[in-house]
Amino acid sequence: MDKKDILVNHADLQNFSAALFEKAGLSPENADFFAQSLVDINLWGIDSHGVLRLPIYVKRLKSGACNPKPNLRTVKSAITLEVMDGDNGPGQIVGRAAMERAIELAKTYNFGIVGAFHSNHFGAAATYSRMAAAQGMLGVSMTNVVQNVVAPGGSKPIIGNNPFSVAVPTYGKFPFVLDISLSAVSGGKLLLASKKGEKIPLDWGTDKFGKPTDDPDVAFNGFLLPVGAYKGLGLAYVIEILTGVLTSGVFLDGMKGMYKYPDDPSLTSHMMMAVNISAIMDPGELEKRMTEFTQKIHSSPMWDEKQEMLIPGELEHRTMQARKANGIPLQMNLYEELTSLATELGVPATLSKM
Amino acid sequence: MDKKDILVNHADLQNFSAALFEKAGLSPENADFFAQSLVDINLWGIDSHGVLRLPIYVKRLKSGACNPKPNLRTVKSAITLEVMDGDNGPGQIVGRAAMERAIELAKTYNFGIVGAFHSNHFGAAATYSRMAAAQGMLGVSMTNVVQNVVAPGGSKPIIGNNPFSVAVPTYGKFPFVLDISLSAVSGGKLLLASKKGEKIPLDWGTDKFGKPTDDPDVAFNGFLLPVGAYKGLGLAYVIEILTGVLTSGVFLDGMKGMYKYPDDPSLTSHMMMAVNISAIMDPGELEKRMTEFTQKIHSSPMWDEKQEMLIPGELEHRTMQARKANGIPLQMNLYEELTSLATELGVPATLSKM
Repeated sequence: MDKKDILVNHADLQNFSAALFEKAGLSPENADFFAQSLVDINLWGIDSHGVLRLPIYVKRLKSGACNPKPNLRTVKSAITLEVMDGDNGPGQIVGRAAMERAIELAKTYNFGIVGAFHSNHFGAAATYSRMAAAQGMLGVSMTNVVQNVVAPGGSKPIIGNNPFSVAVPTYGKFPFVLDISLSAVSGGKLLLASKKGEKIPLDWGTDKFGKPTDDPDVAFNGFLLPVGAYKGLGLAYVIEILTGVLTSGVFLDGMKGMYKYPDDPSLTSHMMMAVNISAIMDPGELEKRMTEFTQKIHSSPMWDEKQEMLIPGELEHRTMQARKANGIPLQMNLYEELTSLATELGVPATLSKM
Repeated sequence: MDKKDILVNHADLQNFSAALFEKAGLSPENADFFAQSLVDINLWGIDSHGVLRLPIYVKRLKSGACNPKPNLRTVKSAITLEVMDGDNGPGQIVGRAAMERAIELAKTYNFGIVGAFHSNHFGAAATYSRMAAAQGMLGVSMTNVVQNVVAPGGSKPIIGNNPFSVAVPTYGKFPFVLDISLSAVSGGKLLLASKKGEKIPLDWGTDKFGKPTDDPDVAFNGFLLPVGAYKGLGLAYVIEILTGVLTSGVFLDGMKGMYKYPDDPSLTSHMMMAVNISAIMDPGELEKRMTEFTQKIHSSPMWDEKQEMLIPGELEHRTMQARKANGIPLQMNLYEELTSLATELGVPATLSKM
């Protein structure tokens, strides 16, 4: 953290955020879940997707661009497959409902997929995959996002960096959780390189015309490249098909990003999948095998002693333990933005510094 | 193709290969499928995984390292989820049976997953995902492979470059087919850079100690790096869990690669998944949407006029059309190896040059 950061208690931040969401029109229960999802993301250390986004979410709920009281409806139901109309509700509320339903289907059929359309930005994909893992199931979550990745050789973005997450229960201290997006790097990593005065590899980003650049500032004002060139590009297409195409939602240029179109529904689509592993493997056996899997990775030798061999989800677990104990760091301007927003909305909640 | 390459007719190559597999102990039907899978891979242009591998497959069938007459048994069955014991049979025969069964499950429940263990090298992942797409279903196929990828900072390979494929029917000239592995590049690309005398990016491969190198020859004798560093690494772990861990097969260092252990079963595991899309979207509507999806990608502007915006599977389709018309190019030494093998096995089949 920066020296100027403010440390806040995670439970305080949760109550504060929930009060704002409730004031913005959400039901108390939905406000709680939405707030929890953002605070969890901060606890995992993914500050780009936590309460940093609270102001724009609240603004869109207040303006009605995002529907605070969506009427979620199942519009297609075919044994293990379902499609839900999100009624332009918050992605967090639509995403949770879709994953809850996928888990229900998996309780009956050992497997469920629920697609959702007419949704909005859903935060972090891991929020939903972890719901399945918490119930002993393998969970997969994904979303399309507005076009922000240029194909190698292309002049303008063709696809989003469509994030996805896979979570697997381990019955240990934390679940296995992969949560990645399909650009080579995030915009944040370009800013970091710029701050350090470093050049960037030519496969990270392009200028405004789609031409590869090693200048992080040029790339930040240009476009992202897909991770692993055609590999990440192809996988982003797959996610676009599983979300926008197969749910009957919009896809590719049909979406409206919340920053560029703050007053419109984003028309985002998600896909949630749950697999009831216990139907084919006892939890005890899974625990044994995942422990062995993790131990083999942990004990693999490193030439770089400053690095550690971790499994996906491990770093987030450590950060969560530390931040629960010591507080969540917020940049001063974000802290001020949040407290001003509370005042503006007439919310009495306070956000004490630790 | 190289000037010294031999062109052979794809149907001749298919008959020739099937005769060899039958002589190696496979049933006529299994020999046909195995041969077809390899010739298809050559038709798609993936020469590294086509009949180039025929000699080692035949050798392993003859020695019994790979069981030519496997007794495939379903050992776990739980509505939409099944696990199959491959009885150390060829990956192509086990993989086909697993995907056929997943498709059957999807005909009943709109979804099926079949995992398989005690299998061997299965060729290309697309062979199986395409089976689902040919029946109007979305298909996913994956396999673990022997550890060949080093984690950034690690001294030795920890995971395979676990390939996977996703196929989606388009009802157009060819299906959407993504088929990738999770190393940054293949060994073949390192050889190509070496031939051209080019340096390679530092995130492609390492020396024998796991340290990044820009020398393609050093990397070829060292290890591969995962595509997109921790992103590809994490996804390779996911595939290892879905194959080796959840099928009750072996994982990570438990496998025995066919080149290092030619006389042992490889103990490979696969996972096949089929989704009956037509249960939630009419084929006509899917065709319309996939056509729109493809057209939007095709018509996206390029700054590099030498490149084209293709969808996954398109290049393979073009190559197949060309090679069906003009023949499949085989390097002279491979052509000679194949014809010698036929003589050695006493197979009367010939492989005429076009």
